[in-house]
Amino acid sequence: MTAFRVCLAQINPILGDFSGNTKMIADAVQESARNGAQLIAFPEMALTGYPIEDLATDPDFLATTRRELEGLASRLETAGLGDRIVVVGFPAGPFPADRRPPASPTAIAENRAAVLQHGRVVGEYTKHHLPNYAVFDEFRNFVPGDDPVVLQAGPLSVGLMICEDLWRPAGPLDHLSGCDLVLVINASPYATGKVQDRLELIRSRVHEVGAPIAYVNLVGGQDDLVFDGASMFVDATGEVQSRASSFQTELLFVDVPTGQQASDRHPAARVVTVDLPAAPATPCDRRMAPSPSPLEETWMALVTGLRDYVKKNGFPGVVLGLSGGIDSSLVASLAVDALGPDRVWGVLMPSRYSSDHSLDDAHDLVTRLGIHSRTEPITDLVPPFEHQLHLDGVAAENLQARLRGVILMAISNSEGQLVLTTGNKSELAVGYSTIYGDAVGGFNPIKDVVKTLVWDLCRWRNARATETGQTPPIPEHVIVKPPSAELRPDQTDQDSLPPYTELDDIIHRYVELREGPDDIIAAGHSLKTVSRIIALIDRAEWKRRQAAPGTRITELAFGRDRRIPITNRRPHAR
Amino acid sequence: MTAFRVCLAQINPILGDFSGNTKMIADAVQESARNGAQLIAFPEMALTGYPIEDLATDPDFLATTRRELEGLASRLETAGLGDRIVVVGFPAGPFPADRRPPASPTAIAENRAAVLQHGRVVGEYTKHHLPNYAVFDEFRNFVPGDDPVVLQAGPLSVGLMICEDLWRPAGPLDHLSGCDLVLVINASPYATGKVQDRLELIRSRVHEVGAPIAYVNLVGGQDDLVFDGASMFVDATGEVQSRASSFQTELLFVDVPTGQQASDRHPAARVVTVDLPAAPATPCDRRMAPSPSPLEETWMALVTGLRDYVKKNGFPGVVLGLSGGIDSSLVASLAVDALGPDRVWGVLMPSRYSSDHSLDDAHDLVTRLGIHSRTEPITDLVPPFEHQLHLDGVAAENLQARLRGVILMAISNSEGQLVLTTGNKSELAVGYSTIYGDAVGGFNPIKDVVKTLVWDLCRWRNARATETGQTPPIPEHVIVKPPSAELRPDQTDQDSLPPYTELDDIIHRYVELREGPDDIIAAGHSLKTVSRIIALIDRAEWKRRQAAPGTRITELAFGRDRRIPITNRRPHAR
Repeated sequence: MTAFRVCLAQINPILGDFSGNTKMIADAVQESARNGAQLIAFPEMALTGYPIEDLATDPDFLATTRRELEGLASRLETAGLGDRIVVVGFPAGPFPADRRPPASPTAIAENRAAVLQHGRVVGEYTKHHLPNYAVFDEFRNFVPGDDPVVLQAGPLSVGLMICEDLWRPAGPLDHLSGCDLVLVINASPYATGKVQDRLELIRSRVHEVGAPIAYVNLVGGQDDLVFDGASMFVDATGEVQSRASSFQTELLFVDVPTGQQASDRHPAARVVTVDLPAAPATPCDRRMAPSPSPLEETWMALVTGLRDYVKKNGFPGVVLGLSGGIDSSLVASLAVDALGPDRVWGVLMPSRYSSDHSLDDAHDLVTRLGIHSRTEPITDLVPPFEHQLHLDGVAAENLQARLRGVILMAISNSEGQLVLTTGNKSELAVGYSTIYGDAVGGFNPIKDVVKTLVWDLCRWRNARATETGQTPPIPEHVIVKPPSAELRPDQTDQDSLPPYTELDDIIHRYVELREGPDDIIAAGHSLKTVSRIIALIDRAEWKRRQAAPGTRITELAFGRDRRIPITNRRPHAR
Repeated sequence: MTAFRVCLAQINPILGDFSGNTKMIADAVQESARNGAQLIAFPEMALTGYPIEDLATDPDFLATTRRELEGLASRLETAGLGDRIVVVGFPAGPFPADRRPPASPTAIAENRAAVLQHGRVVGEYTKHHLPNYAVFDEFRNFVPGDDPVVLQAGPLSVGLMICEDLWRPAGPLDHLSGCDLVLVINASPYATGKVQDRLELIRSRVHEVGAPIAYVNLVGGQDDLVFDGASMFVDATGEVQSRASSFQTELLFVDVPTGQQASDRHPAARVVTVDLPAAPATPCDRRMAPSPSPLEETWMALVTGLRDYVKKNGFPGVVLGLSGGIDSSLVASLAVDALGPDRVWGVLMPSRYSSDHSLDDAHDLVTRLGIHSRTEPITDLVPPFEHQLHLDGVAAENLQARLRGVILMAISNSEGQLVLTTGNKSELAVGYSTIYGDAVGGFNPIKDVVKTLVWDLCRWRNARATETGQTPPIPEHVIVKPPSAELRPDQTDQDSLPPYTELDDIIHRYVELREGPDDIIAAGHSLKTVSRIIALIDRAEWKRRQAAPGTRITELAFGRDRRIPITNRRPHAR
């Protein structure tokens, strides 16, 4: 025997959908077995979806999970697949009180990898390292493990790890040297540049342990997170031998070289012994999915996050307001790529302040995208409110945005589509939006996209269309005109905000890099601008707290990534 | 010397307001010194307010805190108060990467008690036990300590602990036996029954350590949390010797008996030596604030949470819609108790479906409370939308609620008041509200109050008024009539929901006790009702994610207390 065939099953489960997920897993095992895979590995928490958050503290949910896991093992056996070694992530529990970490007395579950064979759960490994930063609350909801596990399949030994275990210096890897393979199951959310970070990390761990690493990642969207897949196999020299696609489900087959390792070198690891299925007769093809460019990757992340939110929550389609501006044009284009034009409804809601070019641009967009559209002017709806309530200034501006929100929600209530809101990250940062107005919606596809990136993405998408002989989706005029909310005559965003290149850099530094005013000023911004923007960001926290979820594409998105008090008088004096 | 006078300074700082908080602390030290206190203790994080959440990961914020702490020490010295021993909670940092817990690589701060004397920070104690459950994310944001500290003031020894340190079995207390006093500084949020839990805990710790315990707690509201104060001193026999009031600032003076302990019995504790100020000549009076009844305590919690959200965020007052129903009547009454009638604006927004009694009841409420009011009918505003959009059914019902939301926000935008939303916990649980409609608002005073408790609180408040010879604030008819949203003719809540006693029990069991359907049915509910209500609760998560914050009064409120995925197909099949 010269190779051991592993399938890294990069699947897209739906959170809590046991019947769908177990079928998905069983189907993947069947297909993998047909292709000669001896071991089929599924991502972290593949059985339930990830993250399950506080469902991990629900004994009923955990009991159901255990039943479903055992049912899956039986089902595979019944289907004649019992000889395959199947590794699948799931939450185990409930555990008694004496095992709970003192900081988290409600934690009753462990984050585990189960090994299935011959109709049974033959072994389990518990994640050692629980991330409790950024979007992760695992230390809140899980009990950490401390027991390294090696799978012994005939002469072959496979060390098991789960996601964060790989990222920390001390952990189960210390006990896995001598393995023929280290298998890491993951639910690693996407962020710009993350694929490269993972690759560098895996390489350094390969050199530490002296064994190849197989890395299988979840794919698909779950609320504000999107998982990119990009599963890979890195050989013992640190070379990437196989790589699965980003943002698509895939079965990645890998022939792991064998016979070079001694199998008796795991002194501190618990050994789970399994039978080694027959090896395939011929080697598998090497798969190396192309790496998308940074903008393409971001586009795919946004499309995947939106598509899965819509599909997994059972919406027939989406509806959004089309102002003729760039944000709604980008969101409409993403929605078409995610769902197809037949499931996208655009609503034009002109007011007396809407410019002709805005309406023209919106109509042009609708034509280019081929989506449904309707026009619901707010012209006659606004005056009764203005007269009854005697509104002017910001109150009158917000009124227009709110009546548009009322229209979108009325359409959604009548027809069932999900309302998309289209505020970009720059707006969300400084509170440049109307709460219960343009902020209305169940999902915000560009919540984590700063304005300068909005332009870059539109240009990239148009260029891609031109390259492939399609019609560019976004009218050129939408990209080049100055941005405006059009809530009063001749308004532009730059009446009240610095240029977006400047604004976005300040936001990036203050929010994502946690820089203070001194550092931001040292980077070339004026004291006055920095003070004003930081104050706006701090003061807009209450609006962000009521904002729709949206796909996270950076290492620090608004939402559970950044937990800031609303009542907050922190000074930024210098 | 027979006693050591300690002041437990139960203060209400504003989060991030260093200049206000340091003044508040300095004033309290001055007043305490005038009353002979030798040691003055302030709550956990008194310098910054609590919880600071991710501000703890901001190096700039931590550097400012350190400067302010040192400034406070100097200020006390300059004011002639340098001889007093002052203990005050604050976040210390930033600390270098090698001290961070592996689960929380962004944690750069410690949760500390500083000891100030003679113009300097003479000692610091770091909290050992970091809560990471319920509303707490301390393991995310702080590095735990492992070094017990004893304050040695002449012959007297005082052991230091911070909040959660008291609640865990193993910790600094193990090293504090032989102390004359154990001082615990706290920021312990209120929940029903919490005072009794704390007292029982303190008593058991007193018996463990064989020393009296002084417990000083924060008071006041911070976003969704409210701190009740109720600081106390429990002597070495377990008797409560002094107790401060609930929900009010107070300086609680305690004469701690001395001379019975040996001071050389702290083998593993680090000793911070301070000078012992002169003892007062005469003993202080014993203070025993009355314990409020459960409903009075809840009322005070809701009033405090609302008042502090309004005041600390600088709003001139509040505005809310008055439907004539019990929820808005309760919220208006709370607002008057919190802010006075002059800072409360009620808006009546009748539609064609509003009953005469609703308008009568709302007018009666306004008269009883003496608040500002105006009437803004939606009668003429609704039809243009209905005709333009051809709405009926739920879409037409929601439209009415949303146009009311538009009116309230327009008034708020014009006049600056905070909009209060008035959905109770039962409604929030099952999604029985219109998002961007009656859910519009910056704060929800009754977010954590189930409907049955809404009635109990109204009856209690009216009875209290009668007892004290005031006009009962809530019209009797509001309490006795069947609840209705009045969005269609002859609608009542019980058209679509089970009776509230039944609903509230199911909510309590499913949400707060995490019971599964089997247990809930075993408690006497029907399978059909339980299945329906649980499905409603699960499906309403997306609405709750966009809900306003509101005062938490139970051990499990909606919000960061309960983190549940929106996309969630978990089955509840039986």
